[in-house]
Amino acid sequence: MREYVIGVDIGGTKIATGLVSNEGKLKQKVVMPTLSTRGLKVSLEQVYKSIAGLIKVSKVDRKKIKGIGVCAPGPLDPMKGVVHNPPNLFGWHEVPLAALLRKRFSKPTKLENDANAAGMAEVIWGAAKGYKHVVYVTVSTGIGTAVIINGKIFHGKNGMAGEGGHVTIDYNAKNARCNCGNNGCIEALASGPYTVKRLVAQIKKHPGTKTNIMDMVDGELDKITMITIAEAAAEGDSFALETIAEEGKLLGIWLGSMVNVLDPEVIVIGGGVSLIGNVLFKEIRKSMYAHTINIFAKNTPVLPAKLKRDVGIFGAASVLIKR
Amino acid sequence: MREYVIGVDIGGTKIATGLVSNEGKLKQKVVMPTLSTRGLKVSLEQVYKSIAGLIKVSKVDRKKIKGIGVCAPGPLDPMKGVVHNPPNLFGWHEVPLAALLRKRFSKPTKLENDANAAGMAEVIWGAAKGYKHVVYVTVSTGIGTAVIINGKIFHGKNGMAGEGGHVTIDYNAKNARCNCGNNGCIEALASGPYTVKRLVAQIKKHPGTKTNIMDMVDGELDKITMITIAEAAAEGDSFALETIAEEGKLLGIWLGSMVNVLDPEVIVIGGGVSLIGNVLFKEIRKSMYAHTINIFAKNTPVLPAKLKRDVGIFGAASVLIKR
Repeated sequence: MREYVIGVDIGGTKIATGLVSNEGKLKQKVVMPTLSTRGLKVSLEQVYKSIAGLIKVSKVDRKKIKGIGVCAPGPLDPMKGVVHNPPNLFGWHEVPLAALLRKRFSKPTKLENDANAAGMAEVIWGAAKGYKHVVYVTVSTGIGTAVIINGKIFHGKNGMAGEGGHVTIDYNAKNARCNCGNNGCIEALASGPYTVKRLVAQIKKHPGTKTNIMDMVDGELDKITMITIAEAAAEGDSFALETIAEEGKLLGIWLGSMVNVLDPEVIVIGGGVSLIGNVLFKEIRKSMYAHTINIFAKNTPVLPAKLKRDVGIFGAASVLIKR
Repeated sequence: MREYVIGVDIGGTKIATGLVSNEGKLKQKVVMPTLSTRGLKVSLEQVYKSIAGLIKVSKVDRKKIKGIGVCAPGPLDPMKGVVHNPPNLFGWHEVPLAALLRKRFSKPTKLENDANAAGMAEVIWGAAKGYKHVVYVTVSTGIGTAVIINGKIFHGKNGMAGEGGHVTIDYNAKNARCNCGNNGCIEALASGPYTVKRLVAQIKKHPGTKTNIMDMVDGELDKITMITIAEAAAEGDSFALETIAEEGKLLGIWLGSMVNVLDPEVIVIGGGVSLIGNVLFKEIRKSMYAHTINIFAKNTPVLPAKLKRDVGIFGAASVLIKR
């Protein structure tokens, strides 16, 4: 019998809610604004509405819906199902979200943070299928990770494990102050915005740099994004390619350290920046293999994530899938 | 009924073998030279002799000996019980040590690397007793770690997990080339020998440095060890105290990253350098709490190891203790 799980992806701007079958098919999707600036009461009501709306519009027998998985920005406690105080959900403070939804919809409910949920979706339906020990990485505005051990998300003591984006590889870094307050976290060296920042700094420092990027943004430096860099690289722009190579090198140094600690069976990399593809991945692999003491690491695959669109919904749903 | 496990600690210089009771008492100990320069056949024979000798001299009923735990320098495969090719065991190459000992002594046998074994001993008999998720660290000539998850050593795909000493926190470091070939591994920044090296470099750079250390070694810089530094610090030598503070700061930055990834319940620090005690530990804690994104880390204890003497024997024995 086909069964379903509801996946709810709560972001600062929008709530994406979807009905996901146990084979990993997205049957129906509803997107609503979070209205997060209007405070807890309003945005929580939006969460309720999005789930109720999805159930209604999908016309699926309620009995076939086995539960509700929710992912939200951290910090949160996945064991207790409590959202601590995410900076982009205004007024949310120690909200027992899993319990509230369980009461409201009378379904098993689980809360998980974004990166952990996305990692679990890769284990269940994506590139890490069949693996037990997985390091999942998402590189986009920030860098998030999930540590999966014996097929389960590893939460640690307080549900805060897996914050690999804040591993420092350059604690002395002069120009890599991270949003977390420390220096040289990989997030502050290799996430999308920081990579753009480094490229812009290079252009400012060497105004004669040979690159098409300036033309692509009509000379307006603040229009440059990772997409600009990726497009320029795809056309063979050597400056863009160097920027991506540097990003890959940094990610590889960091992953070398992660492999030293965790010796995973596979590393899966998702997030917007990973869409750059092989140009980036080949640099990551080369650097990772060069920066680990693990003599077997060259046999550890570094794969692009399979789930791209709606990964938040799939992630949220995946934490409730029985295997 | 009192039962025993034999713990065999194989080092490059000596083999220490002990009979350990299930309550963690060392009943009898035998120490023999490894004779590692004479090759595999001779040094393996020394291992056999040390175990046979211990059994004989202890006069314990063989039936009460429940197994043989062995720790050796890595790289090795704890799952298969195979020693790969440790640099300080000459001629050892893919030696199926666990199988050889099992055959020879007809007892269950397990192989583990030094740091993992020491970490397990702390979980069973030491400072980490009662904890499930533990990061164990040994700081001495090198820096080793053990990652313990759900009360078990986490081995990863190839038995190579837990090499936290080779996490880099300063990949750009100019003067911290690690023995592993990379830059800025914590081992190359904060192990005993590297800390001594940094202090000596400081003295050379600033010949007028106010410190008693020079007098303590009769002006011979190459006589300075961590013990010299620790003794000077204990007498209030401000230069020695600064050196230890810097070491603590570096270890704390690194542990902050480890906490970000693993969110352990407790961190236990052993090894020769840890004997410096509170002067070092208070700097480690301060730095760790300042360098993690984990909002609960200030409640995560950072404790000195309990097992000091014969930790190798206890470690080797601990991997076979049933709980």
